[in-house]
Amino acid sequence: MRYLTAGESHGPQLTTIIEGVPAQFPLSIEKLNDSLRRRQGGHGRGRRMQIEKDLIAITAGVRHGKSLGSPICLQVTNDDWKHWTHIMGVEPLDEGMDESEIKRQISRPRPGHADLVGGIKYQHRDLRNVLERSSARETTVRVAAGAVAKQLLEQLGIQVIGYVTTIGGVHADRSLAEKLTVEELIERTSQDPVYTADPVASEQMVAAIDAAKKAGDTIGGVVEVRVTGMPEGVGSYVHYDRKLDARLAFAMMSINAFKGVELGLGFEMANLPGSQVHDQIRYDEQHGYYRETNRLGGTEGGMSTGMPIVVRGVMKPIPTLYKPLESVDIETKEVFKASIERSDACAVPAASVVAEHVIAWEIAQAILETFPSDHLAQLQEAVEKRRNEAKEF
Amino acid sequence: MRYLTAGESHGPQLTTIIEGVPAQFPLSIEKLNDSLRRRQGGHGRGRRMQIEKDLIAITAGVRHGKSLGSPICLQVTNDDWKHWTHIMGVEPLDEGMDESEIKRQISRPRPGHADLVGGIKYQHRDLRNVLERSSARETTVRVAAGAVAKQLLEQLGIQVIGYVTTIGGVHADRSLAEKLTVEELIERTSQDPVYTADPVASEQMVAAIDAAKKAGDTIGGVVEVRVTGMPEGVGSYVHYDRKLDARLAFAMMSINAFKGVELGLGFEMANLPGSQVHDQIRYDEQHGYYRETNRLGGTEGGMSTGMPIVVRGVMKPIPTLYKPLESVDIETKEVFKASIERSDACAVPAASVVAEHVIAWEIAQAILETFPSDHLAQLQEAVEKRRNEAKEF
Amino acid sequence: MRYLTAGESHGPQLTTIIEGVPAQFPLSIEKLNDSLRRRQGGHGRGRRMQIEKDLIAITAGVRHGKSLGSPICLQVTNDDWKHWTHIMGVEPLDEGMDESEIKRQISRPRPGHADLVGGIKYQHRDLRNVLERSSARETTVRVAAGAVAKQLLEQLGIQVIGYVTTIGGVHADRSLAEKLTVEELIERTSQDPVYTADPVASEQMVAAIDAAKKAGDTIGGVVEVRVTGMPEGVGSYVHYDRKLDARLAFAMMSINAFKGVELGLGFEMANLPGSQVHDQIRYDEQHGYYRETNRLGGTEGGMSTGMPIVVRGVMKPIPTLYKPLESVDIETKEVFKASIERSDACAVPAASVVAEHVIAWEIAQAILETFPSDHLAQLQEAVEKRRNEAKEF
Amino acid sequence: MRYLTAGESHGPQLTTIIEGVPAQFPLSIEKLNDSLRRRQGGHGRGRRMQIEKDLIAITAGVRHGKSLGSPICLQVTNDDWKHWTHIMGVEPLDEGMDESEIKRQISRPRPGHADLVGGIKYQHRDLRNVLERSSARETTVRVAAGAVAKQLLEQLGIQVIGYVTTIGGVHADRSLAEKLTVEELIERTSQDPVYTADPVASEQMVAAIDAAKKAGDTIGGVVEVRVTGMPEGVGSYVHYDRKLDARLAFAMMSINAFKGVELGLGFEMANLPGSQVHDQIRYDEQHGYYRETNRLGGTEGGMSTGMPIVVRGVMKPIPTLYKPLESVDIETKEVFKASIERSDACAVPAASVVAEHVIAWEIAQAILETFPSDHLAQLQEAVEKRRNEAKEF
Repeated sequence: MRYLTAGESHGPQLTTIIEGVPAQFPLSIEKLNDSLRRRQGGHGRGRRMQIEKDLIAITAGVRHGKSLGSPICLQVTNDDWKHWTHIMGVEPLDEGMDESEIKRQISRPRPGHADLVGGIKYQHRDLRNVLERSSARETTVRVAAGAVAKQLLEQLGIQVIGYVTTIGGVHADRSLAEKLTVEELIERTSQDPVYTADPVASEQMVAAIDAAKKAGDTIGGVVEVRVTGMPEGVGSYVHYDRKLDARLAFAMMSINAFKGVELGLGFEMANLPGSQVHDQIRYDEQHGYYRETNRLGGTEGGMSTGMPIVVRGVMKPIPTLYKPLESVDIETKEVFKASIERSDACAVPAASVVAEHVIAWEIAQAILETFPSDHLAQLQEAVEKRRNEAKEF
Repeated sequence: MRYLTAGESHGPQLTTIIEGVPAQFPLSIEKLNDSLRRRQGGHGRGRRMQIEKDLIAITAGVRHGKSLGSPICLQVTNDDWKHWTHIMGVEPLDEGMDESEIKRQISRPRPGHADLVGGIKYQHRDLRNVLERSSARETTVRVAAGAVAKQLLEQLGIQVIGYVTTIGGVHADRSLAEKLTVEELIERTSQDPVYTADPVASEQMVAAIDAAKKAGDTIGGVVEVRVTGMPEGVGSYVHYDRKLDARLAFAMMSINAFKGVELGLGFEMANLPGSQVHDQIRYDEQHGYYRETNRLGGTEGGMSTGMPIVVRGVMKPIPTLYKPLESVDIETKEVFKASIERSDACAVPAASVVAEHVIAWEIAQAILETFPSDHLAQLQEAVEKRRNEAKEF
Repeated sequence: MRYLTAGESHGPQLTTIIEGVPAQFPLSIEKLNDSLRRRQGGHGRGRRMQIEKDLIAITAGVRHGKSLGSPICLQVTNDDWKHWTHIMGVEPLDEGMDESEIKRQISRPRPGHADLVGGIKYQHRDLRNVLERSSARETTVRVAAGAVAKQLLEQLGIQVIGYVTTIGGVHADRSLAEKLTVEELIERTSQDPVYTADPVASEQMVAAIDAAKKAGDTIGGVVEVRVTGMPEGVGSYVHYDRKLDARLAFAMMSINAFKGVELGLGFEMANLPGSQVHDQIRYDEQHGYYRETNRLGGTEGGMSTGMPIVVRGVMKPIPTLYKPLESVDIETKEVFKASIERSDACAVPAASVVAEHVIAWEIAQAILETFPSDHLAQLQEAVEKRRNEAKEF
Repeated sequence: MRYLTAGESHGPQLTTIIEGVPAQFPLSIEKLNDSLRRRQGGHGRGRRMQIEKDLIAITAGVRHGKSLGSPICLQVTNDDWKHWTHIMGVEPLDEGMDESEIKRQISRPRPGHADLVGGIKYQHRDLRNVLERSSARETTVRVAAGAVAKQLLEQLGIQVIGYVTTIGGVHADRSLAEKLTVEELIERTSQDPVYTADPVASEQMVAAIDAAKKAGDTIGGVVEVRVTGMPEGVGSYVHYDRKLDARLAFAMMSINAFKGVELGLGFEMANLPGSQVHDQIRYDEQHGYYRETNRLGGTEGGMSTGMPIVVRGVMKPIPTLYKPLESVDIETKEVFKASIERSDACAVPAASVVAEHVIAWEIAQAILETFPSDHLAQLQEAVEKRRNEAKEF
């Protein structure tokens, strides 16, 4: 399974093509749109999220509610496009018109963004050519692709849920999430203004966002994704590039503004003795092998153990501040203060939805590589068989 | 550039084939062996490191000290093989001999290792079939491949160095490493018993290792890799799977026992306001664009900024403890205590060498995807040109 | 450079996303549409070609006439879609409605098509689910992707042209094409009813098509693609999967209904002595190295020699015949005669346009792997440099 | 499943690493060596084939006669290496020694070989650096990798056999091979001096080889590979790069000196009406669906139909002639006649063995992408299930 995405932030639309999806699985467009809606929510978002309501159009690969096995194409229209048709137009500029006359041309790279390096790499002197693509707007269709993966996983009894554990130095009690069923977790976090499972921390996080906003600053945070119902042995130890942990790290780190990722106890493992890090192996006839604890976050030797996969990522504060950082105009080489018109003070809640979906994608892809499958029944049977093999081993 | 590795821990040898290396670059076998030697060092290693001295044989791709452009094959012999020819032999067992009669057959999966899940996945009831490959012994040839990459990078003025920043809760002062030149850093860490740049922390780390050993326990830690001399614009923001950060995360997380990775300030970014996270952009005619700080760890928008790349990974404590964890025998289903004969109390120093080499590989690969490089001069010129384009942008 | 396509034959649209295109190269939408127009032409096409006029919409990756370096998204609307919204709809069928009530359901697999095997593989009992995607309609966006590649190659002085050399047993004199410049070849073949360069054969081919049509039969043929202006050393001998010939064979054989591919003298080489197959090497100061003959079709050792690349593919006759073949209904298991309502008698001229574009894509991709390039000037310089290195070698 | 190969023609050894092989399948080293032996046979080979007897050493991935699931490493020693240790040595030349003093340095590129273009691409002025790798010697380990694939396929009831159908204009009666069972075909061709199934043509082929040799010339030919026992639906029509035909074409064309490939009737389809090209579909309860004819060579819509796959490739005459072709010395720029000391007059029989093995590899890889296969039993069951689904469809 693989996918490509296309689309500029102020272009006509975002598009993704997903290839390699098994045939015969029911795909609900409502659930896809639910995912987009969650991505647009959360306390602390700026204006754009309120004016645009993303909706998916499926233009290929699905018929009468079921996947065909052929590539699925999803599109999300940019409502704002009507105001940008000239600035972002495909056609060459009119004869005699100079590129410098284009409105909204950008020569001032923002610190912490792709602007400057992207301009150098692709030789764009209008930095709009960079930021239109490097914008987190692209995550809309990554969420859409992940939402397809989520529905596939659902058919295998696998659930994926993302939520917030830290915002601006406020840390949720992570053990709360651990104690809830996935359904309870979905229920709780989806109603929370910052998508966290800890109601006490939630209030403090909201306050931290408001304070940052007032101070003209921004804050980042940590999101956690939990995957339950995993069959054993997805991923492999036999070659380094087949390790499931490595793939999850890749996926999480590929999200805009993410700068770290960890599984289970994560970086805390550097401070603990081995006897407090590893999970003892248990067995009973009913469950087969299991672990009472899940400190390793659901993988051993680069493979899923059957325990929930727990992976976290850290998002840096949005670099577009009201409180300006200094930068240099690429035309005049003069220092300027990178102040901006509008911005989110905190995008961590939305990022938890993105993380959920990119992890769902990665898990689904890894499962399809372990159990290559032309249609859903074949896949379901292979996964079920593995669960039995594990129990009877 | 790509590579595959093969080899079991007690098989005859480890092998790697590296394909896609530019022609005409000088390759020193001494430097390759230096890398292997460093991997075998560090305070806290067990017996095997002392009895085996890894040496590389090059069997393809190099002639008269220079790369040919054809695949490079590197081999490291397992000195111990002579004692394992029967147990690990390729030939089928003699007629009438039962598999259960094989010596050193293993039915007791160790917690925290690939043993149990690997057995389920590949249907190995002799778990030796798993652990022979899942063993960190394989990192020997990953280091060898990375050592080839390092020599290539050297020719481009890029240096990569890995060292330890945390062991068992003892944290080195990271700012010390930042203040040193790469040469000083190599000098300092290579002479340190735990490969760290902070002499005060070093003593405490040694003590922590000794204490863990005495307690029959193990400890993990954090390693940091620093890459200097990077050209701008390696990696890309245009598609999620081309982001340099994601690739570095993949590489780091693919090392045995690694459970987290972060760039720059990493997880600390969840606690800081945006104004203290991003690096302001500066310019002068001599240097072109630069940043005074390097909080983001050398990447923006998934691309190298030209600042040093700083990436860290966390290694869990070795799961093979003298202080036993409980597990279940797969034949009898009885609980046993996973005690062991011998083990390292801490492998973090060695892991810093592995991390250095897998990151070097990833950086080299990303560079070869960015610049034309059938032969070294072509690559050098392209990289130099990029540096100039960046300066003159 | 890579691309994915999506779209069913009677769905709303066809889409392709192209990732990895260098920035800053001028992209003309008129030229893209020219390619589509040529694909829809040629003597012997059925009705659909006349009622539908394919036009491209660019929805990402291009701004003001130039590539941005970000993924390019191209869409072609199916004009017919308005008649198929129910039959091919995305939404699940209304409650209580049985799948068997869907109009135009197909239980009769046509010989020579994907119908039967596709149904088995993906468990589609309505074979429409197969043929909607296996239809050659998909080549519309493969041509579109190739047309982007062609424009990129043009900027490097590389031209790609496809034309017909055999239809239904009528063989054009291939030496005629060889004697023409590319411009003359384009001129001549684009005005020919069957896109061939041999006017005498052309008349006979037209007659053969008309005769086949009258007989209720179909005919296939051979197309040739010629690539001029190639730099030396694209592809490589160092690993089998980097050979340019192999990639060209892959591309040609991946076209619907193609069953063979050959370079230069091709299969005729089995009948000739070595002295009549190989091209002697010449040199003069003005041209550098060259060959007087081009029997090998422009490659040696899996690399471009600088001579024109000449590659041919054979297309089987369209399997949808008026003169019916026998097959079996998958529901009743009864034999039926696979007669059809409408069809092309010969699609070889159109296939020559498809071949031209898939080869253009493959050449462009191979060039970008040899000279990885972020923007056009960088690519142009690298290719020019190679041409000089070849001359001065 | 993937593999890399390494090794120079006069280096110490050839190596391949094969990654992704299912666990638990019995691997016979005798059968691997049988494949190498067949590759070294056939009428018309030169001296080297007689002095070197290739034998495989397995250094990883196999234990007690069964695959472990971990990468398999195969090595073949070059017996001749002892005479080349200095000329092909890894170590840099002694201080003060000039590269031009190296023995057997080559400045005269042979027409039809990689020599000249390879030299330009990698900037090798000693063309030995090219020909050591571009030599067909490398096919030894490609055969070895394919021999592993063949043994895997055998476990699935799939057999692959390659043989000669044309040499130097002498065409075997291809229908003879079609009438034989695979066992009979193996028996017949393995005892034939030119590995063909037509005894009459065989004598003429031998005579043609002898005549070419006498004339100081060389001849090429056509080889055919037949795959029986294929399950239905391997490969796919849903995306162009998943078509089985395309992959087979890639594999065949990647063999040294191959310039064309075709399936079933191949290029002959350009001369026949559709009614004589396609295979009618039949059904009976015992066999399920089948075709009485196999003109398409076992694929429809890019997928295996269950009929035997029949694919042919054309090999050009060996370019190293006693009857010299003209070329140009790269140092002096003077014309020379590319005469040689020794050579095979015809390598087509050996090439049929290579073709058999690269096709076996490709088929095995395509099967592993279609069905779950961590271990052999899982794969066997999935393939069997597909065969039943096809029958019951």
